[in-house]
Amino acid sequence: MGATPPLSPLAPTAFPDLPAIGGVKFAVAEAGVRYAGRPDVMLATLAPGTAMAGVFTRSSTRSAAVLDCQDKIGKVSDDGAAILVNSGNANAFTGRNGLDAVKAVTAATATAAGVPEPRVFTSSTGVIGEPLPHDRITAKLNELTGALSDTSIDLAARAIMTTDTFPKGSATTVTIDGHPVQIAGIAKGSGMIAPDMATMLVYIFTDAVVDQPVLQSMITALNRRTFNCITVDSDTSTSDTLLVAATGVSGIRITEASVGFMEGLRKVMLDLAHQVVRDGEGATKFVEVSVTGGASDDEAHTHALAIANSPLVKTAIAGEDPNWGRIVMAIGKSGARADRDQLAIRFGDILVAKDGWVNPDYKEDDAADYMKNQELEIHVDLGLGGGTAVVWTCDLTHGYIEINADYRS
Amino acid sequence: MGATPPLSPLAPTAFPDLPAIGGVKFAVAEAGVRYAGRPDVMLATLAPGTAMAGVFTRSSTRSAAVLDCQDKIGKVSDDGAAILVNSGNANAFTGRNGLDAVKAVTAATATAAGVPEPRVFTSSTGVIGEPLPHDRITAKLNELTGALSDTSIDLAARAIMTTDTFPKGSATTVTIDGHPVQIAGIAKGSGMIAPDMATMLVYIFTDAVVDQPVLQSMITALNRRTFNCITVDSDTSTSDTLLVAATGVSGIRITEASVGFMEGLRKVMLDLAHQVVRDGEGATKFVEVSVTGGASDDEAHTHALAIANSPLVKTAIAGEDPNWGRIVMAIGKSGARADRDQLAIRFGDILVAKDGWVNPDYKEDDAADYMKNQELEIHVDLGLGGGTAVVWTCDLTHGYIEINADYRS
Repeated sequence: MGATPPLSPLAPTAFPDLPAIGGVKFAVAEAGVRYAGRPDVMLATLAPGTAMAGVFTRSSTRSAAVLDCQDKIGKVSDDGAAILVNSGNANAFTGRNGLDAVKAVTAATATAAGVPEPRVFTSSTGVIGEPLPHDRITAKLNELTGALSDTSIDLAARAIMTTDTFPKGSATTVTIDGHPVQIAGIAKGSGMIAPDMATMLVYIFTDAVVDQPVLQSMITALNRRTFNCITVDSDTSTSDTLLVAATGVSGIRITEASVGFMEGLRKVMLDLAHQVVRDGEGATKFVEVSVTGGASDDEAHTHALAIANSPLVKTAIAGEDPNWGRIVMAIGKSGARADRDQLAIRFGDILVAKDGWVNPDYKEDDAADYMKNQELEIHVDLGLGGGTAVVWTCDLTHGYIEINADYRS
Repeated sequence: MGATPPLSPLAPTAFPDLPAIGGVKFAVAEAGVRYAGRPDVMLATLAPGTAMAGVFTRSSTRSAAVLDCQDKIGKVSDDGAAILVNSGNANAFTGRNGLDAVKAVTAATATAAGVPEPRVFTSSTGVIGEPLPHDRITAKLNELTGALSDTSIDLAARAIMTTDTFPKGSATTVTIDGHPVQIAGIAKGSGMIAPDMATMLVYIFTDAVVDQPVLQSMITALNRRTFNCITVDSDTSTSDTLLVAATGVSGIRITEASVGFMEGLRKVMLDLAHQVVRDGEGATKFVEVSVTGGASDDEAHTHALAIANSPLVKTAIAGEDPNWGRIVMAIGKSGARADRDQLAIRFGDILVAKDGWVNPDYKEDDAADYMKNQELEIHVDLGLGGGTAVVWTCDLTHGYIEINADYRS
């Protein structure tokens, strides 16, 4: 492990004030899985009746913990539940030993938290390919259950960090029929970030009453427009996990038709997704890439990701160079349909190119000034149809090389 | 244009001694298209009867010169031919003006070289989106035709460079029925290198007699195993061009059955492809990624490219970190089939992982020593079937960021 990277210049000024969510308690501990002198394990317990929904990485080499969660997530139960997360070791590509480690951790957590083993969900994040020292985690379970508190979500956000430079949290209150419903979430993620999903762990909690299938279909749909629309480096993790727990403690029932709840959940998910990009390894610029006029939404998304993942586009942004030729290049290579002579490109409000060539009124100095901003918008209109997409990314800098050329040794 | 990057540590010790190819003459000139004080235009003239074949970028935003070449390449003719290449400006995404510039250059070259306009092939490489000052090129045509020589191929290799740190050439002699046939080629390429094809210009010349369709089918097949198997940064150019000219001056006829000629051509193409990777922007390591045991050759190729293009794999290599977990990650994200528990990974002769986990005899120190080499081999066996692939790439370093965060301004 190299030196801790400096705080991202795109970090929020402070961790937000997250409300307590009825039915959820948190505790953290220093288990020394890999890091010393900092909490690296978090436990969340969930009241009986909590509905659990999740979305997971589609990597073919996904971790043992992800496989275990996928197995359990669709099963409806009225029992309590628990989430246990460690940082420092991903327990991925650890063969039979990986499954055994998950088994050991989930069984011990079930006993300590007093919930059935099929209701224990675990995640592991960190180095791939090294055995998880699960006994260090299980040795801390009594300490964890003894420390459970409904106000420790900020500590939980810190315990799950790896190369993150700031903890990530977001919350909102939604009013349903005059009654408040709370939604609060935490996330980790900084490198190995790309759909699907990003290299991330995300845990969101609400005190709403939501049937499991409704909650699952909501987050599956929202995931497509939030976490699946961010990329830092085009690399996809073996551990990506989004878990959403609805405890039901508020007594307020949410249905498919609850537009306000859906919007609140979207807001929290998008905020957390943006925070992951803002903590992109080495990031100095936050970039929104929007594409309109695509032959379809999917093709617009393909173009947007080709731009957002292009090392040449990302280094140009790092250099504050309005090098729109590289955007043309990225569109050309994406594989989705584009007609060179229909393309229009904007940086913010500056029309750079249209009809397949540079805008005659374009002034390079204006664009160069614009590129000095910390928040940038790149907009491409393909002029083909009604397909649209938005993705978020960051620049590619020396910081990324520094962090990743010496992460493990 | 920033400062010239230092010579790649992977550069060959010297430019090879390339033989004169009967029927081919070269000249270069300083046209000042963008660079001052160095040749930036090269002209090659080809004897009557020369067969021309080519492979071009599949970018949907390809340049005007590429579109013009594609239009002409399949047409058989007994007339002489000419190739004119400028560096400094790609004449890509320049709308109607781009086509006009190609027209102006090809017409003037045809007159100066005394060949029909449909037999003039041009390439432009450099900045995208700026109008090509074609009058600066056409003003040099008389100087170029006056300077033609059959020994200037090394000057031509230099004139076509952009961010290249060394000129690239390769040659071989093939003996057909006891008679020597010469093959010699030059290439440029350093960044924006990815299939299909790499961001490159390649010109190969032979004095063999080859019918155009035979030559075309040979290079199409060989391109798949050479230039389409290299990647520096996953970015695909708008200008990629491979042109092969067979002048016929040797009088030795080549047919589909000429295995020796095909092998000679393959050798030259692969050597040039490797040189492009060795001049990859910022490269300090040359890496061969080979995949065996794939469900098909195509799926093996998909895995090999996922590894070779992964920023996390490439930064680990830069940091001499045997971080094989990132290789597992790249396989997982590739989209092609893989079974975690069948995977085996080697660095050179060191068996790192097998059966889905680290090899019990693996010593990290051995692998760390191995990673200090300038030439590295990463081998993955998927254990699924008979599919194989080999690709070549380089590491991702601070040098890449330096070169690309300030290429244009």
